[in-house]
Amino acid sequence: MRARRDVLAEGRARRAWLRHPAQLVVAGFLVAILAGTLLLMLPLARSGPGGTGFLTALFHATSAVCVTGLVTVDTPVYWSTFGEVLILALIQVGGFGIMTLASLLAMLVWRRLGLRSRMTAAVETKAIGIGEVRTVIRGVLVITVVIELLTATLLTFRFALAYDEGWGRAAYLGVFHAVSAFNNAGFALYSDSLIGFVDDPWVCLPIALAVIAGGLGFPVWLELIRHGAVWRAWSLHTTMTVSTTVVLLVVGTVFVTANEWGNPGTLGSLDTPGRILAGFFHSVMPRTAGFNAIDYAQARDGTLLGTSALMFIGGGSAGTAGGIKITTFVLLFWVIWAEARGERDVEVHGRRIDDRAIRQALTVALLGVGAVMTATLALVEMTDHALDLVLFEAVSAFATVGLSAGITDDLPAAGQLILIGLMFLGRLGPITLVSALALRERGRLYRLPEGRPLIG
Amino acid sequence: MRARRDVLAEGRARRAWLRHPAQLVVAGFLVAILAGTLLLMLPLARSGPGGTGFLTALFHATSAVCVTGLVTVDTPVYWSTFGEVLILALIQVGGFGIMTLASLLAMLVWRRLGLRSRMTAAVETKAIGIGEVRTVIRGVLVITVVIELLTATLLTFRFALAYDEGWGRAAYLGVFHAVSAFNNAGFALYSDSLIGFVDDPWVCLPIALAVIAGGLGFPVWLELIRHGAVWRAWSLHTTMTVSTTVVLLVVGTVFVTANEWGNPGTLGSLDTPGRILAGFFHSVMPRTAGFNAIDYAQARDGTLLGTSALMFIGGGSAGTAGGIKITTFVLLFWVIWAEARGERDVEVHGRRIDDRAIRQALTVALLGVGAVMTATLALVEMTDHALDLVLFEAVSAFATVGLSAGITDDLPAAGQLILIGLMFLGRLGPITLVSALALRERGRLYRLPEGRPLIG
Ligand SMILES: [K+]
Ligand SMILES: [K+]
Repeated sequence: MRARRDVLAEGRARRAWLRHPAQLVVAGFLVAILAGTLLLMLPLARSGPGGTGFLTALFHATSAVCVTGLVTVDTPVYWSTFGEVLILALIQVGGFGIMTLASLLAMLVWRRLGLRSRMTAAVETKAIGIGEVRTVIRGVLVITVVIELLTATLLTFRFALAYDEGWGRAAYLGVFHAVSAFNNAGFALYSDSLIGFVDDPWVCLPIALAVIAGGLGFPVWLELIRHGAVWRAWSLHTTMTVSTTVVLLVVGTVFVTANEWGNPGTLGSLDTPGRILAGFFHSVMPRTAGFNAIDYAQARDGTLLGTSALMFIGGGSAGTAGGIKITTFVLLFWVIWAEARGERDVEVHGRRIDDRAIRQALTVALLGVGAVMTATLALVEMTDHALDLVLFEAVSAFATVGLSAGITDDLPAAGQLILIGLMFLGRLGPITLVSALALRERGRLYRLPEGRPLIG
Repeated sequence: MRARRDVLAEGRARRAWLRHPAQLVVAGFLVAILAGTLLLMLPLARSGPGGTGFLTALFHATSAVCVTGLVTVDTPVYWSTFGEVLILALIQVGGFGIMTLASLLAMLVWRRLGLRSRMTAAVETKAIGIGEVRTVIRGVLVITVVIELLTATLLTFRFALAYDEGWGRAAYLGVFHAVSAFNNAGFALYSDSLIGFVDDPWVCLPIALAVIAGGLGFPVWLELIRHGAVWRAWSLHTTMTVSTTVVLLVVGTVFVTANEWGNPGTLGSLDTPGRILAGFFHSVMPRTAGFNAIDYAQARDGTLLGTSALMFIGGGSAGTAGGIKITTFVLLFWVIWAEARGERDVEVHGRRIDDRAIRQALTVALLGVGAVMTATLALVEMTDHALDLVLFEAVSAFATVGLSAGITDDLPAAGQLILIGLMFLGRLGPITLVSALALRERGRLYRLPEGRPLIG
């Protein structure tokens, strides 16, 4: 009798976990970050004498696992090779983890909504079987390895042939920056990030392409592999993600290039192709890789503000990119469009968007604005830095971008804790929020009478 | 035959106008602003020699009619008494106009939605009769005159008895600041706005109360008059407006007082009751009156940022306040709340909020963010001012607040045009947008199949 009750209780406990898979994701990331922190504290991980303090180790473990790339110490100088490899491993764990877990949560959500997706066969059950989990893991693994290998190979050849690195060192640099790029992590093994390569397309372009690839997200990749460029066969999610990615890249390139054209601190010293290459590179990096080949501390205020907006939007869902995600952003755009035309339904690419999805997009975007605003306010109060720099840094942390206007290494401990919180919240907040919402929706037997306040 | 066709065409034209009443509102404001501009250009309106240039006149006519209060010249020094009275008249026309027209649009919208409101008797027709128009005009007139008279009387006595003004001058000052306060205009007859009265409750409190009164809006006033404090009888709109007003006033007072407590440039030199009074006053003024009794150029960055948020939210609908309006803001808050609890419906104070209302609130808020962001970006590009000052000024113009961090009189012509555009857009954008949306909604015979992108 007692045993039976235990079994029942255990079954209930397991079901409770399954009902809240988002909590599992959060717990997994916390464990990875804490393990990374302890390992980074080892004297072995530092190139100088002694071990690393808890706060510094926690900051970089969070930055690596959340694939952000913000740093308070100079990566190639401060850490030993063991420390660098450790950071690389944390990046790979974090990037792989977020892609896999977000894809599984997406499957759960789509299935719960009764929508077929390319990712899931049409099945009766609403749970996800172990076979499907294996399929997702294998798919993410294959895409990750293929793109990282390709990028690493190109970079290795370039570092060896054009920069006189030995092949071993070139391969190490190639692998590190390829992994950092595909996972949108933005950690670099140069003290000035990639500023030394600003006009080298053989470094900038492979890295930019790997960043874009990682930022599309696994569900998009699955469809691209199956349907290629036959965009009529794409799902709504893929169409929205790919088309908006293209639009944001074009707009971002024109914006950065035009804005920084004559600025001697950034693009001004380059020739015309170099300026366009750098402009393109810095329209890719805010979404949300975080390498930089120009010095943002010398960029114009307008560039910082526009880049902050690009960072906040971020990349594709269920990939390595951060931000509120492209679909969230573009959905809100289509709501406005539908309202302006007086349409009853919000229609995008031949599909009607459910009001629940709109409310979720609204929730994700507004909570993001709220988190960034609150953190910015707190950071402005505790430092003397100008608002544009603080806002840039807060958005960069929340959207797990890692670009810096140069104030992160200057923050007090409380400021670093705020950035740590933003990175964690930005990495896991949107996906766990939406999946929790979608999976937990409560029915109700009665509806209240309608009310209508004046708006505007 | 020809005559009959003309009659038909005329009828159609009239119906087209009635179908787009928002266009009438916009046209009316344009006419008032242009007339004001021409009158302000007269040499008679200036105290110095010569007339005022077109841009300066346009700026102040827009600022007065849109009840904003941003200025590029020193009101008591630059303008003659005729000019001051002219500005006062423009304020009264603008404030009365927006209250009346927004109330009529609200009646149209509520009736079109089939919702009874306290403002409208239950009638079959969806049009608004001339009798109802008269009722609204009379109601707005009575409330305006009563509150302005009360405020002017209090101020007149204070100016005469405590500041040694002659009774004529005291009455002029009293009326001017009472009208400016009730209409949320923020024009003052002192070069430093109300800084000289920062610790005088007999000036600050009547002005603050008049500002709050004007900012509640006519529909709220109607119900307050009918039901008093019996809040169970209030409509959803009134409950939301009044409760949020109280919350924002408390939060704003605590925020400003705590933040500026030790700042010698603002509250630091006052005693404790003075600091609390000033903190309260500056939690009222951002919503959206625009008088200031402290120097915002010396306020902390955090205060500017927090005040920008309060300004953006603004006051009540169909009143003299600006911003995206309290109901718009609080509706979005309740959406997030409902989502977080997994509710199917968004429920506020025992009422279900229609998804259309949510989408309209979203549209108003996001277009507001877009307008402010775009203007801020443009102003940052064309000046050397810090982002927090530029953002403050842009929000102040959009929300028709009129608070200044001191950069408005320093802007180039293009920058002034941007502020003019923001004031006009901020004043008329939200109400015309929402009424146009609500009145123009198109039905559709078929609905597309549902699609669902990943969010977050
Ligand atoms: K990153
Ligand atoms: K105002």
